[in-house]
Amino acid sequence: MNLEFISNMTDKMNGAESLVRTLIAGGVDVCFTNPGTSEMHFVAALDKVPGMRCVLGLFEGVVTGAADGYYRMSGKPASTLLHLAPGLANGLANLHNAKKAESGIVNIVGEHATYHIKFDAPLTADIEGTASPMSHWVKTSPTSTTIAADGALAIEAARQTPGQIATLILPADTAWGPAEVVGETRTPPATPKVSEDSVKAAAETLRNSERTTLLMGGAALRERPLELAGKIAAKTGCHILTEGANTRLARGAGRVQVNRIPYVVELAQEVMQKAGDLVLVGSREPVAFFAYPDKPSLLMDPEAKSTKLADTHEDMEEALEALALELDCLDLAPAGVAAAARSPLPTGEITLPAIANALSALMPEGAIVVDESVTSGREFFPSTAGAPAHDWMNNRGGSIGYGMPVSIGAAVACPDRKVIALIGDGSAMYTVQSLWTMARESLDITILIFANGSYNILRGELTNVGVQNPGPRAVDMLSIDRPDLDWVSMAKGMGVDATCARTSDELVKGLNAGLNNEGPYLIEIAI
Amino acid sequence: MNLEFISNMTDKMNGAESLVRTLIAGGVDVCFTNPGTSEMHFVAALDKVPGMRCVLGLFEGVVTGAADGYYRMSGKPASTLLHLAPGLANGLANLHNAKKAESGIVNIVGEHATYHIKFDAPLTADIEGTASPMSHWVKTSPTSTTIAADGALAIEAARQTPGQIATLILPADTAWGPAEVVGETRTPPATPKVSEDSVKAAAETLRNSERTTLLMGGAALRERPLELAGKIAAKTGCHILTEGANTRLARGAGRVQVNRIPYVVELAQEVMQKAGDLVLVGSREPVAFFAYPDKPSLLMDPEAKSTKLADTHEDMEEALEALALELDCLDLAPAGVAAAARSPLPTGEITLPAIANALSALMPEGAIVVDESVTSGREFFPSTAGAPAHDWMNNRGGSIGYGMPVSIGAAVACPDRKVIALIGDGSAMYTVQSLWTMARESLDITILIFANGSYNILRGELTNVGVQNPGPRAVDMLSIDRPDLDWVSMAKGMGVDATCARTSDELVKGLNAGLNNEGPYLIEIAI
Repeated sequence: MNLEFISNMTDKMNGAESLVRTLIAGGVDVCFTNPGTSEMHFVAALDKVPGMRCVLGLFEGVVTGAADGYYRMSGKPASTLLHLAPGLANGLANLHNAKKAESGIVNIVGEHATYHIKFDAPLTADIEGTASPMSHWVKTSPTSTTIAADGALAIEAARQTPGQIATLILPADTAWGPAEVVGETRTPPATPKVSEDSVKAAAETLRNSERTTLLMGGAALRERPLELAGKIAAKTGCHILTEGANTRLARGAGRVQVNRIPYVVELAQEVMQKAGDLVLVGSREPVAFFAYPDKPSLLMDPEAKSTKLADTHEDMEEALEALALELDCLDLAPAGVAAAARSPLPTGEITLPAIANALSALMPEGAIVVDESVTSGREFFPSTAGAPAHDWMNNRGGSIGYGMPVSIGAAVACPDRKVIALIGDGSAMYTVQSLWTMARESLDITILIFANGSYNILRGELTNVGVQNPGPRAVDMLSIDRPDLDWVSMAKGMGVDATCARTSDELVKGLNAGLNNEGPYLIEIAI
Repeated sequence: MNLEFISNMTDKMNGAESLVRTLIAGGVDVCFTNPGTSEMHFVAALDKVPGMRCVLGLFEGVVTGAADGYYRMSGKPASTLLHLAPGLANGLANLHNAKKAESGIVNIVGEHATYHIKFDAPLTADIEGTASPMSHWVKTSPTSTTIAADGALAIEAARQTPGQIATLILPADTAWGPAEVVGETRTPPATPKVSEDSVKAAAETLRNSERTTLLMGGAALRERPLELAGKIAAKTGCHILTEGANTRLARGAGRVQVNRIPYVVELAQEVMQKAGDLVLVGSREPVAFFAYPDKPSLLMDPEAKSTKLADTHEDMEEALEALALELDCLDLAPAGVAAAARSPLPTGEITLPAIANALSALMPEGAIVVDESVTSGREFFPSTAGAPAHDWMNNRGGSIGYGMPVSIGAAVACPDRKVIALIGDGSAMYTVQSLWTMARESLDITILIFANGSYNILRGELTNVGVQNPGPRAVDMLSIDRPDLDWVSMAKGMGVDATCARTSDELVKGLNAGLNNEGPYLIEIAI
């Protein structure tokens, strides 16, 4: 690849081209884009330089969410191409979600030419200020001769362990000015190992506490770390739990089964009461998603203590190996391995358990489940525990509209695997433009839309914050069924084939249509 | 209204209710909303307190753009209700546009309970930092007893002349804690008058320069200020121009006709060459939308000078009266008044001039035209100069996706007037969720979608930045026709009746259907 670069280089290389070459040389070879005028040199460079896969989105939230999903499945940062501060702003909500998921992303944000900024043209705004709340690293590259080095720094920032959001601002004259070099990224430093003391402290908790739980998060939720956790559970009798939402959880038949802490505070407190003392592996003491009057923010049993084994910036798999060695259980069979078990196909009326059974019955081996089912999906997780091995993703940042974009990125990263997107109707509308990109790229995604015509979770939240009998205006603000959204029409309008399931039999038929064919397929489920 | 407040007040009023009452007492009686859990007390208060019209959007960019459109037509700030930093982020692009349009808006952004923030729950992020780049005024109200006073300050900030973006952050415990008072807003200070010296300097320029132009902007583009400009033109022979994009321009038969400075730099330079010296009224020396290699940022003739008569924070109408008095032309008939003239109805092939003629022929008296037609619409402006009196709006901030949301706000503000939204297909996709709110509220909006299947403006911009022969990957990033967007299906999916016009006759039929009925109607124009 390096030879090819050299042969293509001419003395006419500009800043944009040197950045594109730097990205590709640094392993960032996918770009989710929604460009504008200030990004035209970057777009032109994509033609000149081979090796960058470009995926267009019609809204920036699609673009940034796709980069999140790509990182979750590939472990590599993708780049995004965004247009000035407002274009970046449109992508911020899914950058927030990606930041909370610790996904690495390199955002390239076009800016006016440096000398043009002072004239305060219509699109002028503070890009660094807009980027900062949702970025770990922000820099405006001042000249076409610095952009290669700055691009390399952005890549290095994004691909740390865990990943980071790096936002590189590219003024138009930085893009079009002359450049000569391709930036080189340094080899990432080795992921730090945890101390012996941490391992011993965790072992002590597991040996001595009456009830203990391994609370796992981040990359500790892959197959091998979970297997190690299962060995530790076999030895010590501890529980294994995860936070309510995870970036990517390996599960299904043959894998150590992990339950999540529930969203509803009272249920979470019950679970944490039983959990006892915690050993934290890529997680932290669990907190409530929201505060409510007279409910606690911390979900832990106030009597319990927590011991940190490893954080997400550390080598968690190695820490679990060391812990299993310390506890002398490396050779034990793991406890809690899920047996293969599929539910029977449902028939008759469509209910949430029927949908859960259909998923369990039909989910293919290696599926990637992107879960934004909100209230509808609370039954899906247990029922699919014994389905063939798959990955399950949740929204770590809580800003809805993450599911369809993340599905795009996952499908780009894993073209040989089926993506199943479970999306509430309210959530799906935030980034509905995702459907078009799925059609354009023929991505292998089956989308289930739970059409309850309501921000149903907010109905419950009204009660949770103390409103017992909401009046008609409050209820109206939480209802999205006037008019009804017709998902089949919207999907077809964006080039995605679709069907509406009003019975379990229609759902099974729809799922078979989606899962047995390649490309995107949407099933509106009227519940 | 105040009596009603008092009778409804109980000792159980909470912070949210005191804020809702403060907003209504301060004349902010429309709320465009997309709430979440942290806003539930505000939602509940809307049931308890009468007098707030609530309009739900399924995406926050719809909400903030609607508030912009509402201000443009009513001159009053609306409120928005947004969910934490990511919800605000989704509304930022249209807040950017609203800020550049100098529209007043009161954003209410829910935040976690103050004591919950430190636990860094999933939706925790820096709301003040997110708000700052697109707000003039930002404050987090610390307690339920301060929220009324802070609400009043936010209203005062928003309704300055010109309007401002005020973002009030409402932590959940501020909303649910006890409150006792309703905030009182002070009477806005009188709009400052310009100095005699400014009037005399402007008069001198108009008397002595060989060629002069009144460059008008902001509220100087209403009927009476334009009439005064026409009188000054009749006396002095000056031209009258506006910047390329305006907040709201009064035009049509019987009104003084104003041309806009073109978007394309070379054309703008030609116009400015002829313009000579400028007298600025609510405008500034014109600048290019973007910078391009070897093209200037400033569009003015380098030999010309500019004189400021009045800025948008000053009383521009009074300044023009004073100038006309100084020039002794108050009694003259204005020059440049547009004669009533409608184009003939087009037939046959659908072309941009045919669309322009159809608009000219059918636009009703009092129409509000929201123009986001981008490349397609460059012919529409001249052809409608003699149509019945109407208002014409452009995007002052340049972030596309403003048109359909602004149409919503304009229709809410002016239920007796027809809104005509002229929207490019690429632009429409950014805030496509607008269609659902139009259907829900039965807003009287006829939407024309120019379906050229391309970010067509960017094709031109590629050439403008120096790329003569874009390759297939660059062209692909600017094409949105793979797959084609089917606007009729998408509109129907969101409850809006729609048709596709492939000939001029179908367009005329569609326009008649839209314009002669109430409620939203979409016409996809295949061009």
